[in-house]
Amino acid sequence: MNEQHVVAGGAGFIGSTLVRVLLRKGASVLVLDDFSLGRRDYLGDLQSDPRLHIEECDVADRSGIEAALRRASSRARVAELWHMAANSDIPAGVHEPDVDYRKTFQTTYELLRACRLVGIDTFHFASSSAVYGDHGDVELHESIGPLLPISNYGAMKLASEAQLSAASEAFLRRANVFRFPNVVGTPATHGVILDFVRKLKSNPARLQVLGNGSQQKAYLHVSDLVDAMLVVATSACQEKVQLVNIGPVDAGVQVRWIAEQVVSRVSPGATIEFGSEGRGWLGDVPRFRYSVSKLREMGWAPRLDSEHAILRAIDEISVQEGF
Amino acid sequence: MNEQHVVAGGAGFIGSTLVRVLLRKGASVLVLDDFSLGRRDYLGDLQSDPRLHIEECDVADRSGIEAALRRASSRARVAELWHMAANSDIPAGVHEPDVDYRKTFQTTYELLRACRLVGIDTFHFASSSAVYGDHGDVELHESIGPLLPISNYGAMKLASEAQLSAASEAFLRRANVFRFPNVVGTPATHGVILDFVRKLKSNPARLQVLGNGSQQKAYLHVSDLVDAMLVVATSACQEKVQLVNIGPVDAGVQVRWIAEQVVSRVSPGATIEFGSEGRGWLGDVPRFRYSVSKLREMGWAPRLDSEHAILRAIDEISVQEGF
Repeated sequence: MNEQHVVAGGAGFIGSTLVRVLLRKGASVLVLDDFSLGRRDYLGDLQSDPRLHIEECDVADRSGIEAALRRASSRARVAELWHMAANSDIPAGVHEPDVDYRKTFQTTYELLRACRLVGIDTFHFASSSAVYGDHGDVELHESIGPLLPISNYGAMKLASEAQLSAASEAFLRRANVFRFPNVVGTPATHGVILDFVRKLKSNPARLQVLGNGSQQKAYLHVSDLVDAMLVVATSACQEKVQLVNIGPVDAGVQVRWIAEQVVSRVSPGATIEFGSEGRGWLGDVPRFRYSVSKLREMGWAPRLDSEHAILRAIDEISVQEGF
Repeated sequence: MNEQHVVAGGAGFIGSTLVRVLLRKGASVLVLDDFSLGRRDYLGDLQSDPRLHIEECDVADRSGIEAALRRASSRARVAELWHMAANSDIPAGVHEPDVDYRKTFQTTYELLRACRLVGIDTFHFASSSAVYGDHGDVELHESIGPLLPISNYGAMKLASEAQLSAASEAFLRRANVFRFPNVVGTPATHGVILDFVRKLKSNPARLQVLGNGSQQKAYLHVSDLVDAMLVVATSACQEKVQLVNIGPVDAGVQVRWIAEQVVSRVSPGATIEFGSEGRGWLGDVPRFRYSVSKLREMGWAPRLDSEHAILRAIDEISVQEGF
């Protein structure tokens, strides 16, 4: 791989992990990030690599994005663009829809617009299992319908997918939509493990858990996620828009178990207190069955199941937070 | 019906027809329209009805929309809001995506935001069969997936539906999504019949048709469309977001036949010239099978099939254009 890639949101949790792997494979990379959630130091030692360019840029800003992509194109052809920028704080979007509107939807819109103008024809999009909504026990396969997201986060991801579909008709040569599961690892910026670790840091005696702890979800380690994206991105593709669920193959773990593991790693003996509700927050899908058969047929398998992904992430995040 | 309704885009083609029917049923109506495509005189004699308020308002403008809905709520409770405002010129959105972004997507976003603030909990949305994309011979039922719109118009309609889904989780008591077919009638602002009539007006000897004329589509007369919306809106509803395809039950008619009928009504003897392509423009779905079984189960049936809807609309539009 001796090509230039652009990673929007490349200083964030998943973006920075992707950038590391792309550089390792020989690509040169332009990171665009507004550093609202992402941080330069998430890219750590990579910052000294001459093949890495970093530009501070609001990805929803039309003129800024277009100028950045034109500069990149003048250095070398941009082979692929990865859109990893979004609001990743789902509850924040419940209270203020503008957050998801601007950071998730408008970023996709402006990136696609700029790609068309500048001539970038391969677009990878970080979507989410949240596009599906709550389907109870129905297995979430890429072809089920209707999709009824219950959070603004999920709605703006689905709205972004819709734009990609139209853009594929108009000018994109290839579009991949990765529907992410719950992803864990470092650098952690949000999520249940970080939340628990920080609560225990401020009060080592007690851990309060939103919801009754029975929510069961599948988790993927970020290293497996990036690996899956690259498998999809390099696969032979018959579809104009390739929608792919990414996730582990197991049924997942309960929040209760995660809380117990974090306590035992960070603050053994702390009391865990649960709420009474079956879901953690408005817009949270408490339980779902996620089909990854399409991805499996491409030959991919995760190295870590949900349990091992969580245990590894607890270790990594504990270190990150100073334990 | 003795309630206040708000109709965004109420001075447009479908909106003005809806307003007429709502007033006839006893409702009071606030029309919000920016008069970019809609016109006051489409509301004709209704303008003297004291139960009709008309406000010129950019439906994508946050403060304007909120103020208008607050004024309406101070007069009487707003029972239902109908979002009929959109860019209805699909090819325009292919050339300049901002049109659909602003007029279709952002209007939905700002209306939902204002409804939440003001306390309006029943939202009807004019969506489109364009959300499906091109599925060849697969019957387009509300539950098929994935939806892959091929125009920005369809993408922004689907993106709007996604928002409605999240809003239903957050605050809406009831949301109806009407997926419109091709609709014909007056006051015509766009569409194949108006296009043909105007072409023949400027050149009575020759009618040039985009595409080879083999595109087959089903058409519904606007009177049947509004009737169907009211059937859905007043139906008992088990779903948080009720998605309903609206359309005729027949297989539709070919563009070639429409051209012949317009010629025979407006300029008998004119030569019809066809293009060579199977579709009329980028983003046009040349042929689709639209399932309306869900709507039929609610007891609705169209009064006019595609042929009769077209013939009636040709008469109405010919009169509108001075023939």
